[in-house]
Parts: sequence; C-alpha cells; structure tokens
Amino acid sequence: MLDRMFDPNAVAVIGASRNKGKVGRAVLENLMAASDDIDIIPINPKDEEILGLRAYPSILDVPREKNVELAVIVIPAKLVPGAIEQCALAGVKNVVVISAGFKEAGIEGAHLERECVALCEKYGIDMVGPNCLGIIDTASGLNASFAANMALRGNIAMMSQSGAICTVTLDWAEKTSVGFSKFVSLGNKADLDENDFLGFFNRDKDTSVIAAYLEGIKNGPDFIKVARQVTRSKPVIVVKSGRTSVGSRAVSSHTGTLAGADAAYDAAFRQSGVLRADSLAEMLDKSRAFSAYPLPAGRNIAIVTNAGGLGILAADACSNAGLTITSLEESTIAKLREALPPAAGLYNPVDVLGDASADMYAYALRTVLADRNVNGVIVLVSPQAMTAVGEIAEKIVDTVKSSDKPVLCNLAGGTRVQEGEDILHRNGIPNYPFPERAVTSMYALCEYYSIRNRSYVPPDEMKVDRIHAAEAIREAREKKTRTLGLESMGILSSYGIHVVDSRIAKTLPEAVRISEEIGYPVVMKIVSPDISHKTDVGGIRLNLQHADDVERAYNTMMSDVRHYMHNAQIAGVQIQKMLSGGKEVIIGMNRDPQFGPLLMFGLGGTYVEFLKDVSFAVAPISIEDAKHMITSIKTYPLIAGVRGEQPSDIASIIDTLMKVSQLSMDFPEIMEFEINPLMVMPEGKGCVAMDVRFTIDTK
Amino acid sequence: MLDRMFDPNAVAVIGASRNKGKVGRAVLENLMAASDDIDIIPINPKDEEILGLRAYPSILDVPREKNVELAVIVIPAKLVPGAIEQCALAGVKNVVVISAGFKEAGIEGAHLERECVALCEKYGIDMVGPNCLGIIDTASGLNASFAANMALRGNIAMMSQSGAICTVTLDWAEKTSVGFSKFVSLGNKADLDENDFLGFFNRDKDTSVIAAYLEGIKNGPDFIKVARQVTRSKPVIVVKSGRTSVGSRAVSSHTGTLAGADAAYDAAFRQSGVLRADSLAEMLDKSRAFSAYPLPAGRNIAIVTNAGGLGILAADACSNAGLTITSLEESTIAKLREALPPAAGLYNPVDVLGDASADMYAYALRTVLADRNVNGVIVLVSPQAMTAVGEIAEKIVDTVKSSDKPVLCNLAGGTRVQEGEDILHRNGIPNYPFPERAVTSMYALCEYYSIRNRSYVPPDEMKVDRIHAAEAIREAREKKTRTLGLESMGILSSYGIHVVDSRIAKTLPEAVRISEEIGYPVVMKIVSPDISHKTDVGGIRLNLQHADDVERAYNTMMSDVRHYMHNAQIAGVQIQKMLSGGKEVIIGMNRDPQFGPLLMFGLGGTYVEFLKDVSFAVAPISIEDAKHMITSIKTYPLIAGVRGEQPSDIASIIDTLMKVSQLSMDFPEIMEFEINPLMVMPEGKGCVAMDVRFTIDTK
Repeated sequence: MLDRMFDPNAVAVIGASRNKGKVGRAVLENLMAASDDIDIIPINPKDEEILGLRAYPSILDVPREKNVELAVIVIPAKLVPGAIEQCALAGVKNVVVISAGFKEAGIEGAHLERECVALCEKYGIDMVGPNCLGIIDTASGLNASFAANMALRGNIAMMSQSGAICTVTLDWAEKTSVGFSKFVSLGNKADLDENDFLGFFNRDKDTSVIAAYLEGIKNGPDFIKVARQVTRSKPVIVVKSGRTSVGSRAVSSHTGTLAGADAAYDAAFRQSGVLRADSLAEMLDKSRAFSAYPLPAGRNIAIVTNAGGLGILAADACSNAGLTITSLEESTIAKLREALPPAAGLYNPVDVLGDASADMYAYALRTVLADRNVNGVIVLVSPQAMTAVGEIAEKIVDTVKSSDKPVLCNLAGGTRVQEGEDILHRNGIPNYPFPERAVTSMYALCEYYSIRNRSYVPPDEMKVDRIHAAEAIREAREKKTRTLGLESMGILSSYGIHVVDSRIAKTLPEAVRISEEIGYPVVMKIVSPDISHKTDVGGIRLNLQHADDVERAYNTMMSDVRHYMHNAQIAGVQIQKMLSGGKEVIIGMNRDPQFGPLLMFGLGGTYVEFLKDVSFAVAPISIEDAKHMITSIKTYPLIAGVRGEQPSDIASIIDTLMKVSQLSMDFPEIMEFEINPLMVMPEGKGCVAMDVRFTIDTK
Repeated sequence: MLDRMFDPNAVAVIGASRNKGKVGRAVLENLMAASDDIDIIPINPKDEEILGLRAYPSILDVPREKNVELAVIVIPAKLVPGAIEQCALAGVKNVVVISAGFKEAGIEGAHLERECVALCEKYGIDMVGPNCLGIIDTASGLNASFAANMALRGNIAMMSQSGAICTVTLDWAEKTSVGFSKFVSLGNKADLDENDFLGFFNRDKDTSVIAAYLEGIKNGPDFIKVARQVTRSKPVIVVKSGRTSVGSRAVSSHTGTLAGADAAYDAAFRQSGVLRADSLAEMLDKSRAFSAYPLPAGRNIAIVTNAGGLGILAADACSNAGLTITSLEESTIAKLREALPPAAGLYNPVDVLGDASADMYAYALRTVLADRNVNGVIVLVSPQAMTAVGEIAEKIVDTVKSSDKPVLCNLAGGTRVQEGEDILHRNGIPNYPFPERAVTSMYALCEYYSIRNRSYVPPDEMKVDRIHAAEAIREAREKKTRTLGLESMGILSSYGIHVVDSRIAKTLPEAVRISEEIGYPVVMKIVSPDISHKTDVGGIRLNLQHADDVERAYNTMMSDVRHYMHNAQIAGVQIQKMLSGGKEVIIGMNRDPQFGPLLMFGLGGTYVEFLKDVSFAVAPISIEDAKHMITSIKTYPLIAGVRGEQPSDIASIIDTLMKVSQLSMDFPEIMEFEINPLMVMPEGKGCVAMDVRFTIDTK
C-alpha cells in the first residue's frame, strides 16, 4: 500500500492555501512543480479554486473516480483526527500529517496523536508523521512536502526523524548533486516508522542504498529482524544521534555500568548488518559511495596519485581503517614502468607525478584496476600547473563506468578542481574533498561486502529444564527478593550450565564440615544480600588448605565485613571447591529499554572495569554472534592461548552464551544477571560458573 | 635574516624565463602580480629584458645598490651550487631553491644537495628547499613561488613538506576565503627546516596561528625545545603523515613493539604542546578556528540552534570530545524565557525553533554568551522556510566581533546557506559545513587553552653514581655483550633505583645456599642470554618456601628450559627475595631514530601486550611529563588505589622515571632497557626493580 502513497493517482492537500508563507501553499506548489501526471486536489472550505486548481470544501466532496490515494494534512492539530476520519470515509488509505502540535507539544498533543493512531488502525490507514516535513518520490514525481528544495533523482532512499536534518540534507544535496529515490520525514513516527520504511525501501526498485537519521528506534527487536533481512540485499547506513544521553537503564551491575546508553544500539546495528555512521557527513559520504560503485571483493586497495603527500595521507587513512595497501603484481609494475616517467612511483601508492596528463592517469588507473590483487582504487588529483583536472575527471568517469571495482576520487583543492568535480557529479560520481573521506567511504564498501557475505543461522531451541528455573524465579518474586546470589546457581544448572560445588554454612563448625566434604582447597565467600562487591569488604578468602585455614578465614572475614559494613545482614559463608588452571571470564545481561536483553562478555578481574574491554550483543544471539562477542575483546588472545599456554575451552563459552541468551528470552522477569566469574578450563574441559547474581523484577 | 627573505628590497629570479609553461616564467609572473614595491630582477644569460623587466646575465652583474636580498633559483639542479656561490659573491644572503633533482632523485642529487648545504654554511646563506614550490608573504606582497593561486591575506602561517599539499591548500583556501600571513613550501629541508620556521613564525607579528604538514622532523630534540617555547604564545597545528609506515627502530622489547612507528611523534607533540591533526581537513578547520577566535577559558559549551536534530548531533560530538554541555544560569534561562516562544528549548542546547528570526538568534546568542557558566558557543543554523540565513550570519559576525568568547558556526546545508557562508567568510569567520567539525575545532581551542596555561619546569640534574654505571657499560661493550640481564641491576642501583636482593647460582647447592641467605620465600629465574621471555619456557618459579621447593624448582626448570630451547646457553639461575603486597609496573626505553630516548610506562603482566595500555614520553622528561605518563594509562586507578585498596607509592614511580630519563640521556650506548617488573609498594614504601634487561650498542 505504501507503493500507492509514493505514486498516487491523485493527492489531496487538506489545508491547501493560496496565502504565501502558509505551509498549505508550499505543499501545493511543491506538488505542482514536481509532477504533471499526478492529479492534485486542494481541500479548503473557503475556496473553490487555489493556484488554478479546482478546490473542494472537504475530502468527502471529491468525486470517487478521482481515486485519491494520498492525503497530505496541513491543518491545526486538533482538526487532524476529524480529517483522518473523513479520509477513511472517502476511501483514502494513505495520509501524511505535516501538522505539528502532537506528542512533541505536551500531554494534550500526545492525546490527539493517540487518537489519530487509533483511527488509522480502525480504518486500515497508513500514516506518516505527524509533525513532519512530508515525503518525496523522485521516480513518480511526488513532492508532498514543504521542503524548499526538491530532491534530485537518484538511488538513495533517505529517512529522517528530524525535519531540519531533511532540510539540511536536501539543501546540501542540491549543491553537491546528490540524488535520492525516496525522501521521508518520519516526524513523530506515530504509525509508520523506520521498520516500515526499511521494508518498503528494500522492495523499491529505484532504491539501491538506504540512509537514515534516527534519534531512537520504536521497536528494537523488530528492527533487528527487518534490518537483518534488508542488509542482505541493500546497504543501510544510519546516524543514530543521542549517543551520549543517559539512558533509563538500571546500572547496579558491571554490565549496566559498562554498557552505557549506546552499547545496545551498537550491538543491534552490528548484528543486523547496519553500518553506523558517526556523523551526518559520514552518512552522506558513505551513501554516495554505495550509490555509485560496485562492492570491492576484498580489502586490498591501490592508490593512484599525482602528489606524494596526498598518497601518504590516503595510505595512512587506509591503514588506520584496516584496509591493506596491497602489493601490485609483477606484471602490473612492468606495465606501469613501460609508460610512466622514470621518476614515477611504480609501487603502491602509484605516483604518476605532478605533470601527469589525463591519458597517463587513465593508463595507470586501467593498469592498476586490472591487477588481480586490487579490490578497489583511490584516485587522488592535486591541481598542479600542468594538471588538466577536467580531462582527468572525464577519464575517471569512463573508467568507473566500465569497471567492476570501485574507484573513489579525491580531486583535492577548491577553485581549480571545480570543473572536474562538476564533471564527476554530473555523472553521479562523488568527489570527496579530502583523501581521508574517500578512504572512509571505501572502508564502508569493504565492510558491507563482508556483511553481505556472512552467514546467519538463527539459534536452535536448546533443551533446558525451564520448569525448575521458573519455580526459582516465582519463589523470589513471591518473597519480594529482588537480588539472588549464589543460592540461585540452580537456575543456571537447570539451563545446563555447570556450576561449582558450593554450599552455604551458617556457622564455623558447619563451614569446616562442608569444606571437608567438598575437599580442599576451598574458597570462602561472604553471603549477604547487602554486599555486592565482596572483595571490597574482605568477603573472599582463597586457597584454604585445611581446617585451620577455614577457621582463621572465617573469623577474620566476619571481623573485616563487620568493619566495612557494620549493618550488613549476613546469611553465612559460601564454601566452594577452589578450581585452578582456568581463566576467569564474566557474562552478564542487562535489559535495554529499546532492544531487550543485552548480553555482555569480558575477561574477569579488576581490569574489566578500567579497560572496558567487553563486548555486547542483543539476545537472542546466533552462534556467530556468540563467537563475535568472544573474539572481539582485545584480551581474546589470553583466552585463545598465547605463548605456549593452553587455549581455553571456547566452545563451552559459546555454549554458555547461547544458554543465557535463551534464559534471557524465556524469563522477562530477570532484569539483570551476572555470572562472575565463569571459570573457563582448558580446551575440552568445559567451564564452570563460580558465582552469579540475578536481579528479579518483583513488581 | 629570514625577515629579509620574506620582505626583500629586491628579489632576483635565477632562471627567469619568458617562455610560457616554464617555472621560471611562472615565478616571475607571480612576483610581479603580487607586489609593486619589490624590485624584481630576472637573471638569464640570453635575454636583456623579460616581461618588461631589465634582465641580467648573472647575479654578479646586478648593481650592488639594487640590494638584492633574496634569490629564487629555478635552473637545472647541477647548476645550482654554482648559482649559490655567485649569490654569496653578490652578497645575497637568502635563496629559495625551487629546482628539483636533488636528494629525492637519487645518489647524484643527494651529492649536489650536500654541496649546496656546504656552500650555504660557508657563506652564511639561508636556503629554502631545494625541490619546493617557493615562499609567499601576503603582508610584504611577496609571491616567490610557482603556485597557481596567490594566498589571501590572513594570520595563519603555513609550512608544508609537500609541494602538492601547498597547491591543494592554496586552491582550497581561495575557495573558502582562508587567508595566510606566510606560506612556505619546505621541499627537501636541506638547510632551513620546520624548527627554523617555527621560530620565525613565532616572531612574526602578522602570524597568530602556525599550521604545518610534515612527513618527518629533521631534528627531534630541537623540535621539542623550539615548539615548547612557541606554543607558549601561538598555537601550532601539525599533520604528521606516514603514521603507519614501519620505522627503523629495533623491536626486541615490549617498549619497541608497543611503541610502533608513531608513538614518539605523539609523545613529542604532546610534550611540546603541538596540536596534532589527524587529517588535512582537521588541520585547516582548527587553524581557522584559532585565526578567528579568542580562547575559551574552559570546556563548558553552549549550543544555540534552530533545529533539534543538529543540536543533538553537536551535543553528541561535544560529549565524545570531552566538552561539557554546561548548565545555564537561572538568570540566563529566565532571560531566554522572556523573549523566546513557549515551545523553544530554554536549556542547553537552546532551541530557538525553526522559524526564528535573525533578531531572535542574536538575542539568544547574546544571552547565552553573557552566562558565566559558558566558555564558548556553537551556533547551528538550518535553512528552514522562514530562516533569513544572511541576516543571521550578519548578527553572528557582530556577536563574534564583540565577544571575548568563541562562537563557532555551522550554517548547515548547501545552496540556501551560501549567502550566509559568504558573509561569514568575508569577515574572516569560518563556516563549518557540519556540526561535528565545529565541535572538533572548539575542542582544539579548549585544548590549547589548557596547554598554554600548563607549567613547564625543566628536570633537575639528579645525584647519581655515573662512574659505576659507565664502568658496567664499558665492560659490556668490551666483551661485546649486547644484552645484559639481571646481572646489570647494578646500573640501576648506581642511579639510585632500589633493586631486589638477588644473586646468581650456577648449581643447585649454590641455589639452596643463596636462598637460605636471602630468606624464604624466594623466586627462581633462569639466567640465559638466549631467553628473553622467561615465562614462555618455564623459566620462572615463584613462592619457594624451603630448600625442598628450591630443589624441585631447579630440576624441573632445567628440564623445561631444555625442552623448549635445547640450544639455549644457560648461565645459572637467579634467586631473589619474593616480595608481596606491591603492584607490578613496567618501565622501558627504546631509542627513536628521530627523537632519541622514548620512555614507556605501563602496568605489568600479560595484559600490557594485548591492551596496549601504556604511555610514552621523550627523555629528558619533566616531573609533569612523568606524572602524565602515570596518570594517562587507563589502569591508573589500580595504581592510585581503588575500592579501599591502598594507593601505591606514585612518588617513587615518578622518581624512578626521572632517574631512567637521566640514565637514557647520560648513556647513548644504551639502546633499550626494560625494568619488568618494577614492584611498586604501598604509598611511602617505595618501589623495587625486580628484573631488568639492557641492550647495549656494542658496535
């Protein structure tokens, strides 16, 4: 149905006006300027004709045979619900509500907005907005917006949650000749949101790149599902702003503290294959690259330049981005040597020298592109005395059009490269004003190539004892016990996670008895609902070898704990088998308001807090996601085994992550948990949860 | 004398030509176009007149009363030494050698270049180049270059090691109306280099900002000295390219491996107060900010915008950069409330709304600037339907001119903000095309404010036993012992660094005897010139409690070491007192080819390798440098004391760093060393070197 919204037979403007400065006039003018085909129908109770068009007092007065497929609404907010109802009666199934004064304006507006949504649901109407700039479709010639600039035709579909960002982007795009297939101002996203448009843009034959400016995501889990699908066929580049605002997440655990407000977005984008841009400029740069070029089949880049300095800057940027300045084949170098002057740089970066002609550039470019080691080329042109920038630009256009590898350009300078830049832009090829921006965009092409080629296998349902876990959680909720410690290891057990042999002692004699039963050496830990960081208060004693050790440990621990936290309620001590030869890792979960369960993985120990060397993923995770979580921390070599040390049992960490992912999905009542440490034994020997802490929603 | 080079009474062009396309003509034309005051004298044996100017066959033929103070040389390389000699005879003290064909062209060229330098030294001539684009002075009206664009007048002095980067920058600057005081193409830097020009630009009254593109630094230690002085009064922004090229440094130690090729540049820039830019664009952005604005007295930033989306993007960027989106004073908010519409955002970011007039912008800007919490303002303007971008730009100009706080602008868009951008540029105020770039530039202003206000106290000479250390090093050199291990702890001792009680045993009985003497518990380490990573081969045993332990450790160690390295030459085992209760840190030194001794500091342990959580500084270091080294690692809280743990003795680490800094300066023969670990005891208890490894230059 969205197809009809963007390519309607007729469009009605409810609130059309002849008065200059009125949005209702701007929309009408934009519609008229953009298309001769679409029947444009002003709706206004006071006029019979506006700007030469026959006007109707109400949408209900428009003859049915006009087949109005879209209504653009630009009347005061309080009249909008009525207008939507009339649209429904008139059989109009798509509305774009430009009017402001809804949720963004306060309680009354929010109420009006809910009313609109209810009507849309009742009548099966699709609504964009409210509080938006409108929509544009350059293929059908629809400009149902009050934007001052009409988009040029192109293959980038863009959506933006900010109307002003739409304005800025359209104005910037006009100057830089960047074209769009569709342009959507999302407004308050009361009905249609980013997920709807992701799907729509994916089906749209005029769109090959999707760009978005988002301040939030309405439905996180759905976004991941939809985006994962869309990024299989089209690149999606998103600027998500509000990175640094403090989220509403509870932060009583490491996971929460380390995640910050933005980790869930990063994880969700990564898992779904969305390319996150750090700025508007980067989003636009990258979108332009995708709009103009095929994907490079690898990360081996060649540079062709007439200026050593630019070449070095580009090579630096490649290296920083993780792209390889590849070695050229012998035959390529020989071919370059044939034609280039003796002082030229034949190795990568290829320096054709300051006086290189357009033909020389073309020759070098063709030669380098033919090299099997090269996946993509960066061309740099500085306007030297002899440099025919325009001719070079024409050669670049020819090369780009006939090449199945990307050739990104930086004609560097200002006035003297303008002609060349214009030639590139006229041909739909971006000119990046500085070498680093060409490189960043090349990196995005490479990154997306990897994303499109990676596999996604949804996680299998694992066999677990869900009833046992449900029972433990139900009990905690009944007792209003918000925090569960070691005593809840059973929940992990029931999900097939090995837990350490561990029992609680309420007295010293009991502690000694349990130690004897478990077998030395043992570890002793304080058990208290009031103590979350046991080490801080002297609440942990390691490597107790015999009964004497247990006795001394018990006595000093009680005195230490009393000293630090004299009001703490102490339930006893935990005695557990001391394991050695393993590596301590931490696995946590914290529920993100947008995306749900956010899993964390990192190495255990005090370091984790200062170095923030942890990784995140949104549950449910795939095995690939789990692997990525483990391998993407910087200290991964310590787990994988370095310097002759045995590799740890990574398979068992993956298995544990998959299990806690499922646990998080199965029980929304678990707000947070943290297995800390999970002791990972050498390869083949599994892993064991040594301690755990659950936070249960008891409300 | 450089003053005369840039403002000469008369300038001779040796190799002047009337032929189009010749560099000798381009230089002449540029000189003529730029000035009416400077006497321009073509030198060419074949012509009596060139472009209407009286020409002379040789510089020696020019009448002395012409007072030629600069000669620009554009003749074939092999003729240049002769020309320099003639300049000397003619009393010309400054030459700019544009000609190429010197060091960059091979051995013969390098020889010619050395010849030129020798002549300059002999005759006291200052030379720019060879192989350069020339020099420009916009104040005196000197354009002694073959650049296609003349620089506009401004207060930025720029030097570049790449001629093409000069070309690109000048062309870019013309389009964006950026002005320069001086513009210098450094070329091969055979005589005058960045250090000379730093000093000269610092004395130049027309210059208030110094920008540089450098591919290397000729004299690192001098650079630090000069730059440290210059940055006290003028900001210096440098792009140093070639970041990622592999340096020539030896990398047999942690320090070397972790430093990479670029750490010394980073350290040197930081220590000397130079702002390093990551790209040409960033250098230009930042230079423009310094050229237009006063420094902010702190990092509290306010944002004024007519678009929520842009405001959020700017706030994100501030937060990422470490700038604070400050709270506004009550009175400011009240004053904003008086005039702004009800829906406006009164808190920071201040949102004047999409239909804000120029007066409204001016009001908001003035109000926010008057707030005592605000050190600087970012103004964002999106071209909405009602936005009078030109008028707003004029208000911004007025505000900037009357404000003692910086106001950085982003008129965002393209065509529709062009008029506003032109107004800003005409008034010497940069328009940053995206909000993030305004923020990055604001950050540079804040950073430089801190740099200018920090203190620098040169290190005191410490009392050390230099003779003892010299003796040990001399002995190693005589014996051609390149690597010294534990046996060289005496070198540290003689510099007043505490070392652990530690002796070498060649046999098991000796090991037991030494252990008894030192007192249990002890540590045993393998001693072998062939083994650098002792842990890898089982060459360390900890916590040996009695003679039995020593015996078992000795036997298994020998078998382990033999197993891993059956050819290793084993000198015995080291027995040392086992200390506990301290934190292990690592201090290293590696000699950088450019800057000399590069000191490293980090936490000990395996983590250091994977997390690269280390800091660097070039010796000699000040106490402030030492403090910065310690506090700038991410794991600093572990040393400072967290969670009730005792703080470590940081004063003793500073003291050790100062001592090894002096040791590195005193003995250039020490190529590398590494104290690993240095055991740092709790505050007041000092620190102890537990192991050390020196690499001595035995050649």
